[in-house]
Amino acid sequence: MTETRYERGARALSQIDGAAGENVVAALADIAPDFARLLIEFPFGDIYSREGLSLRDREIATIAALTAMGTATPQLKVHIEAGLNVGLTRAEITEVLMQMAVYAGFPAALNGLFTAKEVFAERGV
Amino acid sequence: MTETRYERGARALSQIDGAAGENVVAALADIAPDFARLLIEFPFGDIYSREGLSLRDREIATIAALTAMGTATPQLKVHIEAGLNVGLTRAEITEVLMQMAVYAGFPAALNGLFTAKEVFAERGV
Amino acid sequence: MTETRYERGARALSQIDGAAGENVVAALADIAPDFARLLIEFPFGDIYSREGLSLRDREIATIAALTAMGTATPQLKVHIEAGLNVGLTRAEITEVLMQMAVYAGFPAALNGLFTAKEVFAERGV
Amino acid sequence: MTETRYERGARALSQIDGAAGENVVAALADIAPDFARLLIEFPFGDIYSREGLSLRDREIATIAALTAMGTATPQLKVHIEAGLNVGLTRAEITEVLMQMAVYAGFPAALNGLFTAKEVFAERGV
Amino acid sequence: MTETRYERGARALSQIDGAAGENVVAALADIAPDFARLLIEFPFGDIYSREGLSLRDREIATIAALTAMGTATPQLKVHIEAGLNVGLTRAEITEVLMQMAVYAGFPAALNGLFTAKEVFAERGV
Amino acid sequence: MTETRYERGARALSQIDGAAGENVVAALADIAPDFARLLIEFPFGDIYSREGLSLRDREIATIAALTAMGTATPQLKVHIEAGLNVGLTRAEITEVLMQMAVYAGFPAALNGLFTAKEVFAERGV
Repeated sequence: MTETRYERGARALSQIDGAAGENVVAALADIAPDFARLLIEFPFGDIYSREGLSLRDREIATIAALTAMGTATPQLKVHIEAGLNVGLTRAEITEVLMQMAVYAGFPAALNGLFTAKEVFAERGV
Repeated sequence: MTETRYERGARALSQIDGAAGENVVAALADIAPDFARLLIEFPFGDIYSREGLSLRDREIATIAALTAMGTATPQLKVHIEAGLNVGLTRAEITEVLMQMAVYAGFPAALNGLFTAKEVFAERGV
Repeated sequence: MTETRYERGARALSQIDGAAGENVVAALADIAPDFARLLIEFPFGDIYSREGLSLRDREIATIAALTAMGTATPQLKVHIEAGLNVGLTRAEITEVLMQMAVYAGFPAALNGLFTAKEVFAERGV
Repeated sequence: MTETRYERGARALSQIDGAAGENVVAALADIAPDFARLLIEFPFGDIYSREGLSLRDREIATIAALTAMGTATPQLKVHIEAGLNVGLTRAEITEVLMQMAVYAGFPAALNGLFTAKEVFAERGV
Repeated sequence: MTETRYERGARALSQIDGAAGENVVAALADIAPDFARLLIEFPFGDIYSREGLSLRDREIATIAALTAMGTATPQLKVHIEAGLNVGLTRAEITEVLMQMAVYAGFPAALNGLFTAKEVFAERGV
Repeated sequence: MTETRYERGARALSQIDGAAGENVVAALADIAPDFARLLIEFPFGDIYSREGLSLRDREIATIAALTAMGTATPQLKVHIEAGLNVGLTRAEITEVLMQMAVYAGFPAALNGLFTAKEVFAERGV
């Protein structure tokens, strides 16, 4: 009865990213369906499904990294929403974003905060 | 009896980064002493001293961001040590570093893991 | 009669960034009002208010850095306008942007030039 | 009868980037006409015109680099189209973009794939 | 008789990166053995083993990306060697590195060329 | 009596970067002599030789950009020295480096300051 990597990944993707994650997978269907499968299998089936770090902690790491990189606004949006899905509060996410001013500069933090503002408005939090 | 930003920052720096943080401050003394003061006041006095996110959670964010950026090896080393100082385990830090392969690529994760390997060896964990 | 960091920063922000800077602060009011305060105090109260480098020279540095990074288009726009506010000419700003092709590649320079084109059109310079 | 660098570059630009390249040059005419000239002379007259690597191989390199950097979406779009112009297939370009997940992370690869999706739709391939 | 992802990846890693790849895997054994497995399975078992793009073309893409990113010198070294292993000549690799000056700036190209110089000297090519 | 681009570039390189620039050119002689020529012709013959911005202002831009990027330590070292060569003081360079904390984060500024510390020590300023 062992779950495959794909099944485990699809379950994790749905739990963490919800509809936003499924939209990404759907958007890949015509251009790179294999990449949709790899996206489910490796990040979600292999990494997020690991024990040893809670999903809440994993989303802190992801939100911080994407904000610092500054090149992944659509994915940051998905993961701010994911953070809310797995138990981070709006206030905690805001703290993570503000802290990025120290490591990646004020523009990175500002762009992260304005992305969060959009997500919070859409979610009504 | 209010603590100044500098005093609050110096206390936070010492608690979080320990001797490694104090070494950075000392190394700035001859080239940019004002920057040593600003480093204590803003990141540590203003950001790390805020309520709303634990130091453990803050170090997850910092380790993730510095690993993803890939341009701050000396600071990543300081913050892997800081993570251990504020309660992260070696295993949890390793999970954060591995997860960065998803967001910043395998080289970023590998370089983070090899930096951690050095810190863990020095600390004997 | 000493001005606080906040007062000094607010004065510098207004002088350098004008309405564009005040719009950023206003947009933070609901999501992260503390970050609006920190943005005024540290970059503007602590850094731009320092002696030792003119505001004109500081804006050359900022325009160059934001263009090279390529992840901060809204902030680059604000600082191209700030450059004009503190005495850089359109031609000097264009030279800085062109030079970034050498250090960060042609796409970075092109994106900087097209951002400047927007600002110059809005300002009628 | 030697062709100048400018002539050689203009010919290469036209062959590789087609109308998209000429649009970039035209858009620079009012803001930085010298930069339009330098763009033709150095990247196209000096680099793309060199022997030793085919245009097809050069576009693999450019598409990979721009996708990994993540800061040059307009230029990536131009070069995905250029790749098609010089003999890469849609499937080969998709493979290059997918591979970037390994080196620059999944967000970089996803953003590259969605850029390609736009170009392929516009070109009807 | 189907090969597992791990077996396929180990074979690809050995063919492409040779001893350099195996050294990376060995260095992970004590800090993150699971990551060594994932490194073999995803980049090599899933991506490099795909049809649709030759290993030679894949190494052009990887060398270009790592040079442009500028944050992965040890991995660039491994992949310049890998390029030689799968059929790129010293001259072709040099062309790819030079071309990166256009997209990521002269420092990125220079650092890539000096890394190649080391590899070529060690390999005696 | 017109100077060629190469001659103009060689003169500018010598004036700005001094021996450090000539060392870079020499180090390219065996691996990529054409790139040594292009480095002299484009950055120095085409860009630094332009009117419209002083060499002092150009070095402010370059030092800021290389510090913010964080991927070009050898080149930053050359240009901190170049800044001194064309009239920037140690104090002015330090101000530029400190300011980068605002735009690229504290690690970028710290790494820039420690690079400057090395250069100032070697030059005895």
